[in-house]
Amino acid sequence: MNEAAITLDGWYVLHDFRTMDWASWKLISKEERQAAVDEFMAYLEKLQQADDNKTGSHAFYTVVGQKADFMLMTLRPTIDELQELEAEFNKLTIADYTIPAYSYVSVVELSNYLAGESNDDPYQNPYVRGRLYPELPRNQYICFYPMDKKREGEDNWYMLDMDKRKELMRSHGMIGRGYAGKVKQIISGSVGFDDFEWGVTLFSDDVLQFKKLVYEMRFDEVSARYGVFGSFFIGTLLDGDKKAAFFTV
Amino acid sequence: MNEAAITLDGWYVLHDFRTMDWASWKLISKEERQAAVDEFMAYLEKLQQADDNKTGSHAFYTVVGQKADFMLMTLRPTIDELQELEAEFNKLTIADYTIPAYSYVSVVELSNYLAGESNDDPYQNPYVRGRLYPELPRNQYICFYPMDKKREGEDNWYMLDMDKRKELMRSHGMIGRGYAGKVKQIISGSVGFDDFEWGVTLFSDDVLQFKKLVYEMRFDEVSARYGVFGSFFIGTLLDGDKKAAFFTV
Amino acid sequence: MNEAAITLDGWYVLHDFRTMDWASWKLISKEERQAAVDEFMAYLEKLQQADDNKTGSHAFYTVVGQKADFMLMTLRPTIDELQELEAEFNKLTIADYTIPAYSYVSVVELSNYLAGESNDDPYQNPYVRGRLYPELPRNQYICFYPMDKKREGEDNWYMLDMDKRKELMRSHGMIGRGYAGKVKQIISGSVGFDDFEWGVTLFSDDVLQFKKLVYEMRFDEVSARYGVFGSFFIGTLLDGDKKAAFFTV
Amino acid sequence: MNEAAITLDGWYVLHDFRTMDWASWKLISKEERQAAVDEFMAYLEKLQQADDNKTGSHAFYTVVGQKADFMLMTLRPTIDELQELEAEFNKLTIADYTIPAYSYVSVVELSNYLAGESNDDPYQNPYVRGRLYPELPRNQYICFYPMDKKREGEDNWYMLDMDKRKELMRSHGMIGRGYAGKVKQIISGSVGFDDFEWGVTLFSDDVLQFKKLVYEMRFDEVSARYGVFGSFFIGTLLDGDKKAAFFTV
Amino acid sequence: MNEAAITLDGWYVLHDFRTMDWASWKLISKEERQAAVDEFMAYLEKLQQADDNKTGSHAFYTVVGQKADFMLMTLRPTIDELQELEAEFNKLTIADYTIPAYSYVSVVELSNYLAGESNDDPYQNPYVRGRLYPELPRNQYICFYPMDKKREGEDNWYMLDMDKRKELMRSHGMIGRGYAGKVKQIISGSVGFDDFEWGVTLFSDDVLQFKKLVYEMRFDEVSARYGVFGSFFIGTLLDGDKKAAFFTV
Repeated sequence: MNEAAITLDGWYVLHDFRTMDWASWKLISKEERQAAVDEFMAYLEKLQQADDNKTGSHAFYTVVGQKADFMLMTLRPTIDELQELEAEFNKLTIADYTIPAYSYVSVVELSNYLAGESNDDPYQNPYVRGRLYPELPRNQYICFYPMDKKREGEDNWYMLDMDKRKELMRSHGMIGRGYAGKVKQIISGSVGFDDFEWGVTLFSDDVLQFKKLVYEMRFDEVSARYGVFGSFFIGTLLDGDKKAAFFTV
Repeated sequence: MNEAAITLDGWYVLHDFRTMDWASWKLISKEERQAAVDEFMAYLEKLQQADDNKTGSHAFYTVVGQKADFMLMTLRPTIDELQELEAEFNKLTIADYTIPAYSYVSVVELSNYLAGESNDDPYQNPYVRGRLYPELPRNQYICFYPMDKKREGEDNWYMLDMDKRKELMRSHGMIGRGYAGKVKQIISGSVGFDDFEWGVTLFSDDVLQFKKLVYEMRFDEVSARYGVFGSFFIGTLLDGDKKAAFFTV
Repeated sequence: MNEAAITLDGWYVLHDFRTMDWASWKLISKEERQAAVDEFMAYLEKLQQADDNKTGSHAFYTVVGQKADFMLMTLRPTIDELQELEAEFNKLTIADYTIPAYSYVSVVELSNYLAGESNDDPYQNPYVRGRLYPELPRNQYICFYPMDKKREGEDNWYMLDMDKRKELMRSHGMIGRGYAGKVKQIISGSVGFDDFEWGVTLFSDDVLQFKKLVYEMRFDEVSARYGVFGSFFIGTLLDGDKKAAFFTV
Repeated sequence: MNEAAITLDGWYVLHDFRTMDWASWKLISKEERQAAVDEFMAYLEKLQQADDNKTGSHAFYTVVGQKADFMLMTLRPTIDELQELEAEFNKLTIADYTIPAYSYVSVVELSNYLAGESNDDPYQNPYVRGRLYPELPRNQYICFYPMDKKREGEDNWYMLDMDKRKELMRSHGMIGRGYAGKVKQIISGSVGFDDFEWGVTLFSDDVLQFKKLVYEMRFDEVSARYGVFGSFFIGTLLDGDKKAAFFTV
Repeated sequence: MNEAAITLDGWYVLHDFRTMDWASWKLISKEERQAAVDEFMAYLEKLQQADDNKTGSHAFYTVVGQKADFMLMTLRPTIDELQELEAEFNKLTIADYTIPAYSYVSVVELSNYLAGESNDDPYQNPYVRGRLYPELPRNQYICFYPMDKKREGEDNWYMLDMDKRKELMRSHGMIGRGYAGKVKQIISGSVGFDDFEWGVTLFSDDVLQFKKLVYEMRFDEVSARYGVFGSFFIGTLLDGDKKAAFFTV
């Protein structure tokens, strides 16, 4: 039996992508639209309070292209809270003018590939806690994609022994570190929760850094031989007045 | 000719995933919604009576994310009863406000890979009967996914001889046993019944155990080389007042 | 050039799977529904007359799960007759309350892999004729799936020489023979007609025999190395009063 | 650099598959339907005039099964004309009662694999012209499928040298020649135009010949190792009174 | 760690493919349609001003076949501007009569595979600037397709060393150069931005050159062994009066 990786797990994450049904949205009166937007802004405000209280976090971005019109990424200590927030959203008036486009269920994850040896409880380590229970930044750009490790013929990540995987992940991590200060990365695990094994969420104020980071990694053996990628979603920040303005027609 | 695995087969299973058409649901009057919910609750109560009478079993959970809004898992001694229950559900008023999201047809299954030798009729063995005709638990969380054994090039499960398969399954079963008391697992076979070969349904009061179990297994050769996985669905229990409240808008 | 298999070809087959739009169906009056059902029952009666006259055959079953609500399988001497029956069905009132779910076009087929040597015209052989122009049974259960023979790397059925294919098919056929009296099997070829190479339709009064048969075959090299399977559909017989009752809401 | 095949290219081809929205079609009055059919028949008549003038060609067939209700295949000297005909069709009333099911864009093609040596301009050769600018026949049956040549591991058509490809295509062509007089075949190239590399359209008065031809070819190395096939569409001729009758409800 | 390719990145690109909902479009009055077209023409005029001012570029083409009815390709210095233009389009009246068909997000890219050595800032080189910030031509035909480099078993582009990749790309580039003056090609990178790694947009006044170019390249090792292609879209120019006429019903 091959040695399994061990993970530390933090907040649960729901990525919720929605497409606006603009034609129906335009059919209702300006007053009805305003009421729906006000209700939705109150919902977002409630999410923000959790951010402020550090009892959770969220991010609200448009999505460029037809894959969706906006995405709402929400982190909470339990999956039950995510389910309740999702149900609450579905009961908002604005939800009736959205079409589900994609969603992803995962939990913020740190693996032991890069961990040092320690007898301390990592869940008490402030650095680790900051990674597991992250305050999502308000960078101008977001990038999300789900991914797997390949299990095909000679390219089977899960048949590699732990030492080999550690070595490969170390090299892979080096690339990521080169983007420190430019790209903030949140890895969330979804084995048993959703269709891929991980979700990767990137934040940056320079959208080109997403491309540079992902492309550079693709030449690294971990991605080159073992990476399997789902859809890529890219968006721009909706904050301040932009939030409501996005829905003005 | 390779030696085929032999199975014991229990109750038939229908996993029925539905998405609510919330916009249409909100369009009807509060009284109409109440009547539809009452009718559906009576249907669920009838299902519960079968659980109470041990003539079947069922589970009712929300689904987190956009894959569905709720799932109804029903077990019965015959597939005809499942068909009748499905037809009955479709004729409920609430069904008109749901959109089919996914379903799975299978039968609770035990394979002979891990069986000892015995001359007794296993269908009379109380332990075996408890596994084949299970009373579904009321744990807080559910996880469902369909799966296949791979048949690609060198990684062809069905070309392995029985001894090799037994050896691999024994190691695989060891991992599962490590989660005894934390995760209840129901394997149902669907060869000839649905698009994958098995459905796996997990129950737990700690949702993280699903991830730990599935991830640990992925490093085991049975999954690493031979596992092919479909979509993963994860949900939280709808019981007591939560059942009707889920539909309140 | 590799020696191609030779086939005997019988009646043309259309498998037509439909999902009911129950919400719309409930919207019309009871009288309108009754008229639509009466019209459909007359259509089914006409199909039955062809069965009685041995100028064709048909089967009418519900489908368990969300893949469809019912399937109509029709056999005729020409594909033109199938086209006409399909067009006629589409013009029935009930068709307006159905949504096409899946269909399959093929022709009943016997291959020469298992044939003995003979100088007689096989199309005059009563046993062969009974296989090529079958009277579909009225068993309680039906199972349908389309399939291909694999052409990938070392596992390429069409690159095997005729003797090897014959040997493999003989072993495969042995398994099928073990289910004689329990499962009736109709193989129809669809190379050039539809997206897979064959359709397999099984009938039985014991639904579990479908699972046993398909699972046992999966360990045989023909399926293990060379079988590629599409979706599996499983249903229960609609006959007598059950036909009209299925549509009563 | 591997030697590329050279092609002769003739008329551009649009295969346009449509599903009828029978429920909506039945909702309008008999007079409206008649007007829509008359308008469509005039459109088809205009297509026929191009056939008569040898400035193009077309074929109009139903499709058996749920993939579509009818297909319109149109050939013209420029792709601009195809675009204009498509736009004109979309503006017909009948188009409002159709749902796009599939389409294919290609150009009639002859490759140099089977060509002899000659210094003459092949575009002036009457036989070649008849192949590149074909008058589509009015056979009772049509079969269409798109296909690719495989590029996977050891089975990579495009890495074979020209001599090997010529040798393989010669053997492949022999099979096709065996169906001369029974099946008329039009190969159109779609590299750079649509998702597969070729479209194959077959015409015959004996629908079984499609199956025999495609199945026999499947055992030939060109198909067995290198063929990748898309969906198969099969239909029956709509001509004379059958054209308008198809739309009568 | 394998040496990654380095890119120069220019304007961001949105390819936006839309299908017209002709049936709904015909339902509104001629005056409403005229107003919607006028509004859309003003939007296109605004895009043209950016072309004129060299602050961006755009192309507007129909698409042949059912994949879409028209495509709008827009280039801007920031992805934010593309998002704003997309949002603005969605709020136009004409958008209510379109159905999203496909979109692609990328950035114009030059790789260092073919670059010479130089100490100068390439972003100041006029030739490079002309490639990175291109003025889209008004050729009669457009072709778009997304693509990946393969990572399967022995055919793994990202595991090749830089010298091998340079050598292969040089040979590949030779083919492209043979089409100079006949086909204008814009490569945009989408790693981290969209589901494939590159988008390829071709312009020509001879549609057949697209086929010749893509087919010739397919025999080159870069495509033959390492190319993975998405859908191909092909269209004809909408300019002058053709723009508004396209929407006249």
